[in-house]
Amino acid sequence: MSPAEAVVFRDEHTVALVSGKWWRAGPGHLLVIPATHVENLYDLPDDLAGPLLRTARRMAVLLTEVDGCDGTSLRQHNEPAGNQDVWHLHFHVFPRWKGDDLYERSGDTLLPTKDEQIARAEALRNAIQRDDAFPDAEQHRYSTPTTEKGCDHRWSHPLP
Amino acid sequence: MSPAEAVVFRDEHTVALVSGKWWRAGPGHLLVIPATHVENLYDLPDDLAGPLLRTARRMAVLLTEVDGCDGTSLRQHNEPAGNQDVWHLHFHVFPRWKGDDLYERSGDTLLPTKDEQIARAEALRNAIQRDDAFPDAEQHRYSTPTTEKGCDHRWSHPLP
Repeated sequence: MSPAEAVVFRDEHTVALVSGKWWRAGPGHLLVIPATHVENLYDLPDDLAGPLLRTARRMAVLLTEVDGCDGTSLRQHNEPAGNQDVWHLHFHVFPRWKGDDLYERSGDTLLPTKDEQIARAEALRNAIQRDDAFPDAEQHRYSTPTTEKGCDHRWSHPLP
Repeated sequence: MSPAEAVVFRDEHTVALVSGKWWRAGPGHLLVIPATHVENLYDLPDDLAGPLLRTARRMAVLLTEVDGCDGTSLRQHNEPAGNQDVWHLHFHVFPRWKGDDLYERSGDTLLPTKDEQIARAEALRNAIQRDDAFPDAEQHRYSTPTTEKGCDHRWSHPLP
């Protein structure tokens, strides 16, 4: 498979692509990377920080739209002890599902087939063609209902 | 405890503070948040993305300096199914240690005492006073040795 076939989104500074390794708890997750080489977060120039996190946000929104997932989460790893095993800075953007136990099932991974990766990337690229693929942050497209929050206080535990 | 006592760093758009809930695998981790209210990643305005990730990077570097940890990692959760349980966008910045099993030990948490939180924040604030607390990204302060990488290819698996 050429890298191009896994690419979901690209702008001047960043690339988002379907991961070549999937977690069974959240299959088909995405990687968001700088277009130029940066080994890890420590080396990230300030002017790439905004574009990188903006693309990660866009991909999280895209997953909620395309997968209809119940949530999303990001992971980013530095140095081998921090679980880094690819030497180019990347954010994992996971679709999350109620009770998926993503962390507890950390070792439960699979290698998708090329066809699976290509189909996944194509479905996500197609969704991006829609005009409303990347709503402005100000649209507040999803807020957790107060009834699910346990309380309505902005600074609830564990924030002090 | 007042929130101010847990604060490690503050700039125009972001705040970093010692978490009120610690994981035994990486105790004393930090939270990086926007100074204005943003519920989750979906709602993050583009102009806050850069400041937020820049502060997260700075805190990761700070942890390597102060703790001498073996690595660092970030986590960010959206919606209850994505493990979000505080309704203000926050990045967890963890110090990582060889063999810490942070993910597998996901439920192994503790509530630090106020004194522990305050002492932790103070130690980190003191370290920030040093001139070299936030080295430029261009300094490439840590690259994983090629011998630990398994290969020296920039795009090794799982990136396609």
